[in-house]
Amino acid sequence: MTEDPGAVAHRPDGTGCGAGGAAAERRGRPRNAAVDTTVIETVLRLLEDGVTIGDLSMERIAREAGVGKATVYRRWAGKEALMLDVMRSLDGGAQQPSPTGESVRDDLVAMLEFLRRRGLAKRSSALLRTVVTQMQAQPQLWKEYHDTVVTARREAMLAVLRRGTLTGEIRTDRDLELLADLFVSPMLTRAMLHEWKEMPEGLAEQIVDTVLEGARPPGE
Amino acid sequence: MTEDPGAVAHRPDGTGCGAGGAAAERRGRPRNAAVDTTVIETVLRLLEDGVTIGDLSMERIAREAGVGKATVYRRWAGKEALMLDVMRSLDGGAQQPSPTGESVRDDLVAMLEFLRRRGLAKRSSALLRTVVTQMQAQPQLWKEYHDTVVTARREAMLAVLRRGTLTGEIRTDRDLELLADLFVSPMLTRAMLHEWKEMPEGLAEQIVDTVLEGARPPGE
Repeated sequence: MTEDPGAVAHRPDGTGCGAGGAAAERRGRPRNAAVDTTVIETVLRLLEDGVTIGDLSMERIAREAGVGKATVYRRWAGKEALMLDVMRSLDGGAQQPSPTGESVRDDLVAMLEFLRRRGLAKRSSALLRTVVTQMQAQPQLWKEYHDTVVTARREAMLAVLRRGTLTGEIRTDRDLELLADLFVSPMLTRAMLHEWKEMPEGLAEQIVDTVLEGARPPGE
Repeated sequence: MTEDPGAVAHRPDGTGCGAGGAAAERRGRPRNAAVDTTVIETVLRLLEDGVTIGDLSMERIAREAGVGKATVYRRWAGKEALMLDVMRSLDGGAQQPSPTGESVRDDLVAMLEFLRRRGLAKRSSALLRTVVTQMQAQPQLWKEYHDTVVTARREAMLAVLRRGTLTGEIRTDRDLELLADLFVSPMLTRAMLHEWKEMPEGLAEQIVDTVLEGARPPGE
């Protein structure tokens, strides 16, 4: 059982360009990476100390980080944008692997293996667990995280499935959104809801192959 | 889109025999249904008012319910046992339908349809959402809820799948635990993690039929 060593590392240079970054660029100001890192690490420290996201205010974050409130607001439009960058920093820039374009089966296995390692990383990091659980408790923030981070991963998987319908590796008479759910959900459920269940090596292959038996055109 | 009208009703007579009930019986004392209901409704009111499960103490619950601390402890060994009864009261005695034993496919559809309706009930009840989210944030409580409530449902589904391996409706070369995950997870993920996704009528059938294509012996 290997783990993704980079998955819980903090973003080293603070140069992410998420929601906050985009907003700052629109305002024509260069990012100060050191300040970004200080603010994000302050939020992580507060969360680690047991402060809830609900109790965090931009004022308090600025005070604890030792920077001006205006400085924080210049970088992030609000707490939600900031929290998304905090979440990204915990991701450590972890990227879902790009499809190799050879076998749909192997591309799907690689994507699920990425989720498995992220799930293991979450289990082994109290901080990541705290942040994820707290984000889940804030429906708007959770939705936003999905709209920005998760949607990109989902689109990549849908593209692989669409490719499969052209190559004959995926049957064409099923809703691809549902098929994507069938591949992803068993891993997601273990990673997020049933943390006491094992996520052994080989699980990605097992899920993909079992779902594919039904996702292949009959007779293939 | 119908909803389960009973799913969020409080338990009417307080005669559940959960962890607390069993403990009380072991001590040879009859349950006082009225006191049980008062205590449980007090907890629900406090949660509705924004108190977190972490902040709730047996002392406070007793005080707010207007009963003695000893009375509460006589019924529930601790906060966890009490919270499990609170969760059960929100379930409104909702029972996963028993398998009819005719078609494995139809039995699986009925079980997933039960989950779909529970998911819709959770979406429409702010109180249920609050309790579920807060229980998730307490790993031990969440695990306990699964060990008592969810495990029984899971066993029933595994029994249906085992029956299917004997009747030739389910292939015998796959791990039944994984197959159960494939059926349940797509519904669970929508109900618990992706609340903005639709759970339309027909979803249970769609999931079961798509997974079955792979779960049937080849050539069937």
